[in-house]
Amino acid sequence: MAAAGLRAFATRGPGWRWRGRWAPLSAGVCSRSEPGARPTSARQRDGIRNIVLSDPKKRNALSLAMLKSLQTDLLHEAESKDLRVIIISAEGPVFSSGHDLKELTDERSPDYHAEVFQTCSEVMMLIQNHPVPIIAMVNGLATAAGCQLVASCDIAVASDKSSFATPGVNIGLFCSTPGVALGRAVPRKVALEMLFTGEPISAQEALLHGLLSKVVPAEQLEEETMRIARKIASLSRRVVSLGKAAFYRQLPQDLRTAYHLTSQTMVDNVALQDGQEGIKAFIQKRKPIWSQ
Amino acid sequence: MAAAGLRAFATRGPGWRWRGRWAPLSAGVCSRSEPGARPTSARQRDGIRNIVLSDPKKRNALSLAMLKSLQTDLLHEAESKDLRVIIISAEGPVFSSGHDLKELTDERSPDYHAEVFQTCSEVMMLIQNHPVPIIAMVNGLATAAGCQLVASCDIAVASDKSSFATPGVNIGLFCSTPGVALGRAVPRKVALEMLFTGEPISAQEALLHGLLSKVVPAEQLEEETMRIARKIASLSRRVVSLGKAAFYRQLPQDLRTAYHLTSQTMVDNVALQDGQEGIKAFIQKRKPIWSQ
Amino acid sequence: MAAAGLRAFATRGPGWRWRGRWAPLSAGVCSRSEPGARPTSARQRDGIRNIVLSDPKKRNALSLAMLKSLQTDLLHEAESKDLRVIIISAEGPVFSSGHDLKELTDERSPDYHAEVFQTCSEVMMLIQNHPVPIIAMVNGLATAAGCQLVASCDIAVASDKSSFATPGVNIGLFCSTPGVALGRAVPRKVALEMLFTGEPISAQEALLHGLLSKVVPAEQLEEETMRIARKIASLSRRVVSLGKAAFYRQLPQDLRTAYHLTSQTMVDNVALQDGQEGIKAFIQKRKPIWSQ
Repeated sequence: MAAAGLRAFATRGPGWRWRGRWAPLSAGVCSRSEPGARPTSARQRDGIRNIVLSDPKKRNALSLAMLKSLQTDLLHEAESKDLRVIIISAEGPVFSSGHDLKELTDERSPDYHAEVFQTCSEVMMLIQNHPVPIIAMVNGLATAAGCQLVASCDIAVASDKSSFATPGVNIGLFCSTPGVALGRAVPRKVALEMLFTGEPISAQEALLHGLLSKVVPAEQLEEETMRIARKIASLSRRVVSLGKAAFYRQLPQDLRTAYHLTSQTMVDNVALQDGQEGIKAFIQKRKPIWSQ
Repeated sequence: MAAAGLRAFATRGPGWRWRGRWAPLSAGVCSRSEPGARPTSARQRDGIRNIVLSDPKKRNALSLAMLKSLQTDLLHEAESKDLRVIIISAEGPVFSSGHDLKELTDERSPDYHAEVFQTCSEVMMLIQNHPVPIIAMVNGLATAAGCQLVASCDIAVASDKSSFATPGVNIGLFCSTPGVALGRAVPRKVALEMLFTGEPISAQEALLHGLLSKVVPAEQLEEETMRIARKIASLSRRVVSLGKAAFYRQLPQDLRTAYHLTSQTMVDNVALQDGQEGIKAFIQKRKPIWSQ
Repeated sequence: MAAAGLRAFATRGPGWRWRGRWAPLSAGVCSRSEPGARPTSARQRDGIRNIVLSDPKKRNALSLAMLKSLQTDLLHEAESKDLRVIIISAEGPVFSSGHDLKELTDERSPDYHAEVFQTCSEVMMLIQNHPVPIIAMVNGLATAAGCQLVASCDIAVASDKSSFATPGVNIGLFCSTPGVALGRAVPRKVALEMLFTGEPISAQEALLHGLLSKVVPAEQLEEETMRIARKIASLSRRVVSLGKAAFYRQLPQDLRTAYHLTSQTMVDNVALQDGQEGIKAFIQKRKPIWSQ
């Protein structure tokens, strides 16, 4: 991975460390007005990595550069014991407006368009396949692939003024890839009304229908998200990671296969050092000390 | 298709055009008290087809004749550019009470019973496979296969006095086929309580659990449904159609396959004339002009 | 099955018959403080079997002995016409706290751990595969495999003071097998927040998200659960059983296969004596008399 900068920051001091501007990921991809600026920033402290979509002037559009930058920040030392949970948030009033439409005109080739959508899909799948939990912290509007990003995270916390839409149909570009994540998060009647009309739903409706884990007033958003993140960061990384992988692996299986897979996961989990430590600490009424 | 009458009406004048009584679809099937009457009526205007279950005396039972009439109205010029969205509604206080039990006694052969259930299943699958979105507009009670019909539509809008039940178990006929649609619309604990007890749920509960897209007061039902329909009718038919097909195709797939399918759909969509028109209109801050 | 005692009680008198203490299922398994005590009790009347988790001092932990006792009570004369519905409830303020952690230390072998999880999974699958509906009646806290037990029942009714959690992660043992049932009952964002944080959700939240069928005040819990149970017990056992099996069989299938399976189920159902009796009773406006 190219993202050596993150660890440098992450291991140097005690507080929140903001990553400075990085070199563009590749000269051919990054074509923003500020040369050399990366469209995401990342900081890490106490096991919690905060990745911020940082292109508010472009409504945090998921340009190919943004997607690759997000991918880099997700993959950076993903296996490190120092990383325990990731929060994805955004600068400005728009969480993300989805793809950068300027990249989708016929001035670009179909191959380029295919790269955009494939990269986007890879980022969304990476979130599920990532070894640590990934939380979306949303304060504002999330549309199209931006809504897909929220739907793809393991947990999503939003302020009560946030809203969510898949409005591609308004511009002749049906939100078919966002529909993959949306259709697995909310009932299909809700998904289809959003996809066919392009109209937004409120944070409360999104919570009601399963797109969000929690809704809080805007002034409590960071506090509540950090509370969840700190809780996860205090747990055994190995156990959380094993559990996340097992959850997604069993979900599409038939019931018998799902139980076969997860029963084995439980046996493996019990045999882990942290499994035994946790069980014994509970029986002995003391706090567990995780090995990892 | 036999339903040449619909287009004739649909292309003649400016306003709502009610289809008159048609010839029975087939002499062997239609055995209603008013000879020659079809149990559904259909009208079409501005791209919106309204199919009405029109047998309120029989609580709009989904008799074989009703199912075939509904099927005909759904299939009629389904590929025409003039058709952009379908609304299914009903005359009278009962949206539909489900199968006509008189067709299910042992006075009819098992082959006849099989034809009833197969035709019903075909109509329900046709709704998903249809090229345009299909909206249920419900004002009253929808039970058994009537509830299945609501659950099978892409979008469902209901008045707050509507209710929904799968009461077949009360008459020794478990709602197994309605359970297919219901079990894909609501959580299984909700579906099973409905199926095992036969008790109705309110419109609000149906909304809460995903069976409905929206609930409004009865006096706003038509207005709200038409608002959604007009919105859909204003969009590119080709794009909406491609998106609907992609949504249902990806939904049962594993995540990787789903993204593989829909990424290709996105590339194809971008290459459509209406895809490029929509994107360019957005960039140029003007209204798009759809080719179809 | 060893559980001959239940029928003896069930066929003797008119009222609720409590099963006395049974012999331990096997000397090697049962190691409770009261030798010979079974950790569940069961009674049956008017077609309703009530199985009670009866080890409140151990917070109704799903020890191997508890799981096997529950399995026995579920399987006991499962095919008898006298059994029409099962209620699973619990003594004391905790419905069930999940596995008995003392059985999961490394003092026991991995083979023993595997037996615990496999037995648990078998009990959960047995609930779905059982010929009669199974209702969880919850009044208190249900955690880990206890929450899984609630999620696995066909119907779940809870008092408003109940709560639900999958806190295994706190003790280094991720609730991977509970995640199978939870992930099929609630939206994945809700499931993952519960699994990753271990924090409880209230009965109202559980209802909102599909984990419960109904929430009532504690003082109405038994009355409401019995109302549902009596309703189910009044129906044709054969029809209910056929419908339950069809529902779970079709649910993971693609739509065409699901309709193919259930259309045949409907034809078979219509041909049953109770199918014809129910339809004719309805047409003749009289109460049906079920043959079974």
